[in-house]
Amino acid sequence: MPKKRQILVIGNNENGCTPELELLAYEVGKEVAISGSVLITGGLGGVMRAACHGAHDAGGLTVGIIPQDDASFANEYCDIVIPSGLGLSRDFLNALASDGVIVVGGGSGTLSEMCAAYMHKKPIAALRKSGGMAAKFADQYLDHRQNVKIVGVDTPQDAVKYILDKITA
Amino acid sequence: MPKKRQILVIGNNENGCTPELELLAYEVGKEVAISGSVLITGGLGGVMRAACHGAHDAGGLTVGIIPQDDASFANEYCDIVIPSGLGLSRDFLNALASDGVIVVGGGSGTLSEMCAAYMHKKPIAALRKSGGMAAKFADQYLDHRQNVKIVGVDTPQDAVKYILDKITA
Amino acid sequence: MPKKRQILVIGNNENGCTPELELLAYEVGKEVAISGSVLITGGLGGVMRAACHGAHDAGGLTVGIIPQDDASFANEYCDIVIPSGLGLSRDFLNALASDGVIVVGGGSGTLSEMCAAYMHKKPIAALRKSGGMAAKFADQYLDHRQNVKIVGVDTPQDAVKYILDKITA
Amino acid sequence: MPKKRQILVIGNNENGCTPELELLAYEVGKEVAISGSVLITGGLGGVMRAACHGAHDAGGLTVGIIPQDDASFANEYCDIVIPSGLGLSRDFLNALASDGVIVVGGGSGTLSEMCAAYMHKKPIAALRKSGGMAAKFADQYLDHRQNVKIVGVDTPQDAVKYILDKITA
Repeated sequence: MPKKRQILVIGNNENGCTPELELLAYEVGKEVAISGSVLITGGLGGVMRAACHGAHDAGGLTVGIIPQDDASFANEYCDIVIPSGLGLSRDFLNALASDGVIVVGGGSGTLSEMCAAYMHKKPIAALRKSGGMAAKFADQYLDHRQNVKIVGVDTPQDAVKYILDKITA
Repeated sequence: MPKKRQILVIGNNENGCTPELELLAYEVGKEVAISGSVLITGGLGGVMRAACHGAHDAGGLTVGIIPQDDASFANEYCDIVIPSGLGLSRDFLNALASDGVIVVGGGSGTLSEMCAAYMHKKPIAALRKSGGMAAKFADQYLDHRQNVKIVGVDTPQDAVKYILDKITA
Repeated sequence: MPKKRQILVIGNNENGCTPELELLAYEVGKEVAISGSVLITGGLGGVMRAACHGAHDAGGLTVGIIPQDDASFANEYCDIVIPSGLGLSRDFLNALASDGVIVVGGGSGTLSEMCAAYMHKKPIAALRKSGGMAAKFADQYLDHRQNVKIVGVDTPQDAVKYILDKITA
Repeated sequence: MPKKRQILVIGNNENGCTPELELLAYEVGKEVAISGSVLITGGLGGVMRAACHGAHDAGGLTVGIIPQDDASFANEYCDIVIPSGLGLSRDFLNALASDGVIVVGGGSGTLSEMCAAYMHKKPIAALRKSGGMAAKFADQYLDHRQNVKIVGVDTPQDAVKYILDKITA
């Protein structure tokens, strides 16, 4: 009985999110759910909330790992909340809690999660048309170590497919 | 759409666990699942594994939050694994991830989780016949602050009932 | 060039501290400084502040590891502040940052630090006349593992002497 | 009695470090010490070790915050060691423990520390000729928020001067 697959979706919080990014994140969350994987997010707003919303609408299971020590800060689409009490260093927890990561836009918090995932050699897919860190680092390595390539993808379906292929490889 | 109820079960790991404690923990896990709550544990052996086993057999959902940074260290009954990479300080994460705590026996690690739960004012039930920290602190406060009483109970059913009553109160 | 010796002093914060405990903690801090060791504390009030004050007056070096992510919460006698941003789980950081621990009174937070130190097998001395957790656990093991005995002592001098003997043994 | 100034120096560990980077980091550490500031580093090899060495030779005080839970992993020029037991998420601790950050080269771990410092709005100076993340992000903001500009500098002296000016401003 192996554990379920766990896919982390990261990207802009309310600050910097747009309706287009939210729609994209919603679709990513939906695809994660359809694949039978558990959706992990940082549990707050923007891309995190939209991805949870999409997974929820598709009947999936969602986990929100938030910086605060009180579950009430999580968005309303989190089935399970881990109120870490660790502040922003919960970014590392998110990365570790995942079998793979999908990036939708994103700023410095997203980049910090990408670094954590990269250092722990998690597969990472970046929606290259979503701007932000996803666009900036798509198809690149984060550094000279070449731990894992951040693979650029065009659609939510491709993103989930890439991660699943890597996990089961 | 509020999140699911999350109940943490803590107690001896392999070191110090007995067949009697495992059986008790199995029953506690089963009752947590029957109540429709998510079972949270530290994800390793002994009481943690037995509780996950019980919840699993009753069709429940189990989350293991482990000290290591690699999910493969979790017991085989964890549906979702959070490999915290935080070492033993993940005891605080367990406490924060719960709406209430049930104590089955236990040593110093269990006591550290009880302290974390107490400081964050989570309801705590202790199976008073299970020995260890559960027996030592049943029906007591941990300190002069009297944050929450560690309520002694006699059966797994009573333990879960106490936590649910407190959560929905 | 080995690192300096680092001694952690733990006990009541403002809530539960008394002038007698503060005086005792001040003397403990002073003795830590006289021994040439760095004083580590949780960096806040009560026993933590008094110990830093004592070490400071004796020309010692003090480090405060606080729960908040902003150094301004530390007491004014901390030379170096580590604003952990980890909330109360910084109790584990305190224990890990020490070569040995001295307990002055204390409630549930102090007990959590004692558990962390015990699990990591740090030498622990408890001022047995200081009440609280120090009195409750002096001359006892925290659990069946018997990792380290919490050694009861009568004076700040004895406390520091015990820790130094253990560190250099 | 305010706390001492604390300056974090980050950059390549043994993997990716060069004699040139080590020399530069040595000079940065020396300048930090000459300024009377405490040097904070991640406590391991490469740039971290060289900076500690430089500060040590100039009579400064050095603190190493390491991922492991055992002080023996720190380099020999750390006066004080905080063995965090937090794995790579100690990158956030480093950033929080600083009043300002100086970047010497660096890969993904360095970038993660830059993200943490940026999110917490710490002043950041990057030695623009040192390659790696320092060169890549010198004179840029990490994202659209424009929290703090990563200011490019040419010499260790300029780096320390920039941080001190910002801290005392």
